Amino acid sequence: MGELFLAEIREQPAALRRLLEHRDTFAEVGRALRERGPDVVRLVGHGSSDNAASYGVYAFGLIPGWTAMRDSISLSVYYDAQLDMSRSVVLGLSQSGRTPDVVEYVSRARARGALTVAITNDPDSELARAADLILPLAAGEERAVAATKTYLNQVAALALISACSAERCDEFADNIGKVADLLESALPDLERSAHEVGVAFAYVGRMYVIGRGIEFATAREIAIKLTETCRVAAEPLTSTDLAHGPIAALDPLFPVWAIASPDRAFPAVVEAARRAREAGATLVASGSAAGQIEGAAYTLPTPNAPDLLLTPLLSVVPGQLVANALALAKGLDPDRPIGLTKVTLAQ
Amino acid sequence: MGELFLAEIREQPAALRRLLEHRDTFAEVGRALRERGPDVVRLVGHGSSDNAASYGVYAFGLIPGWTAMRDSISLSVYYDAQLDMSRSVVLGLSQSGRTPDVVEYVSRARARGALTVAITNDPDSELARAADLILPLAAGEERAVAATKTYLNQVAALALISACSAERCDEFADNIGKVADLLESALPDLERSAHEVGVAFAYVGRMYVIGRGIEFATAREIAIKLTETCRVAAEPLTSTDLAHGPIAALDPLFPVWAIASPDRAFPAVVEAARRAREAGATLVASGSAAGQIEGAAYTLPTPNAPDLLLTPLLSVVPGQLVANALALAKGLDPDRPIGLTKVTLAQ
Repeated sequence: MGELFLAEIREQPAALRRLLEHRDTFAEVGRALRERGPDVVRLVGHGSSDNAASYGVYAFGLIPGWTAMRDSISLSVYYDAQLDMSRSVVLGLSQSGRTPDVVEYVSRARARGALTVAITNDPDSELARAADLILPLAAGEERAVAATKTYLNQVAALALISACSAERCDEFADNIGKVADLLESALPDLERSAHEVGVAFAYVGRMYVIGRGIEFATAREIAIKLTETCRVAAEPLTSTDLAHGPIAALDPLFPVWAIASPDRAFPAVVEAARRAREAGATLVASGSAAGQIEGAAYTLPTPNAPDLLLTPLLSVVPGQLVANALALAKGLDPDRPIGLTKVTLAQ
Repeated sequence: MGELFLAEIREQPAALRRLLEHRDTFAEVGRALRERGPDVVRLVGHGSSDNAASYGVYAFGLIPGWTAMRDSISLSVYYDAQLDMSRSVVLGLSQSGRTPDVVEYVSRARARGALTVAITNDPDSELARAADLILPLAAGEERAVAATKTYLNQVAALALISACSAERCDEFADNIGKVADLLESALPDLERSAHEVGVAFAYVGRMYVIGRGIEFATAREIAIKLTETCRVAAEPLTSTDLAHGPIAALDPLFPVWAIASPDRAFPAVVEAARRAREAGATLVASGSAAGQIEGAAYTLPTPNAPDLLLTPLLSVVPGQLVANALALAKGLDPDRPIGLTKVTLAQ
């Protein structure tokens, strides 16, 4: 049980390096995006792909300074909204390239004049055929149902294409290479710490995962890993969301996991963690600033990335490893979550 | 216990009618928005205000055909992203008008050239002073901590300003008036059905609330009401989100609440509800198509709105009433959720 999932988590440094072999393609697509000079970048995906899209909003906002959004698929696909997309760039995210309404969204956006790009692990997929341009994920075949290396490569691909759109391709490609090395060195310690959390949380039924800014994507991705592989109802929240309602639901049976990266949004996360502890919740902290979350019962520190914008490539890994350890502690097979299939065809 | 909360739920038809007294202001602001002809409408708010913003994305997309997004507050306020907002309209949502980072976002957006509008229950608030234009919510003072009538009036205000931006002010104002009448007639039956669900769910600890398209706002708002007043970890999901992970966590102790409105996104909700039932979850269905959710253990039907785009004004009310009934069944005071205050100052 769990051989595939753990092997793919461990394979992530190699997967990042494979992505970098395609840096010329990213540079080329980056030029095309810059020529379009979009008013808005529309990101679409479901599940882990949508989590990666949350990161893309920050990567485009902070590197080329472009407005990016996770667009509503329903608005175009179900309601047929008459939106002008002639000055839009669309990035469709699907590891399989077969998510039906992402393919349909991209086709419609292209017909409405958007410049469309498929970001997919299968460059021969329907999504790739529907789009103007293709960015390969190059993660290698992913066999566990729950995404790990394809998520990480999506985040890296979004960082790299944002950088290439701002003529900073080489700088970011080099730094992603350094992240791959850092991750490789950090994995053995992280696996040990994750095992401890897994054993301690065997009877947890619900959890909040809080992050903010560029780390909200990480909070979302860790929450979905815990939900799908461990059957824990883990909900991702921004640190501010927590104060606007969910704080009322906390008690000592309700752990809160804080994503701690030392950037400008971090003080809000520290404050939210403090309030969660006051409400009696058990705290888990991961990320390179995990040690700064006071009163955390468990910390899963990660190395500092060479660029703060790349920290989400490291900070998600403790969540993947805890999902694996916790599933095993609960007697569940992390390779085969109940009720899920690798390609989700639900609309 | 619960006198304020229930009284404010019951007051909603009157609150909607008070909003309509300001229809000339909405017409005027609508003209200003049309003159700007924005590339993108940026909606910002936290908690229930952010839930209302989810509705705004559809109202602007489907009535004037404008691209609207729930913008990242962190990107502008914490990371100081250098975004060009000269062709943007910004709508800042805060019932109190005092949410610190919404005020800060609006000030920064205005400095970046956006046309800024405050939507607030307090036209003398900081938010109102920070913005170029003001749309009053006119809900009357809200004394219960959990928002009800201010949420409903935010949704109505977003419908009306979208309509006024498309020169359809009168049509929508008239229809919102009709919704107020329909809601008034429906309340007594809804209160009775909500009581039944409250008693049955007294020991529920976690729940998913699913909706899609224009009803995703409703799913989010019902989830936050149940979380803050009843300490249930209720997570809102689109019907597609459910299939991408959370379906694995369902079991017979895990109810799923489906928002059922007979629009083009409805088949996806029906299918998600079917899968949830197969996974053993107890189903609750509310909305005007609640009767079409097969196998629902509880249905809370609402009247048909005169325009499908206005159904979220009705479909949220069963959730408010169940939150009240369930809090009482659990011995909690729905007027005063634990750990929350009326004005949330957390950043």
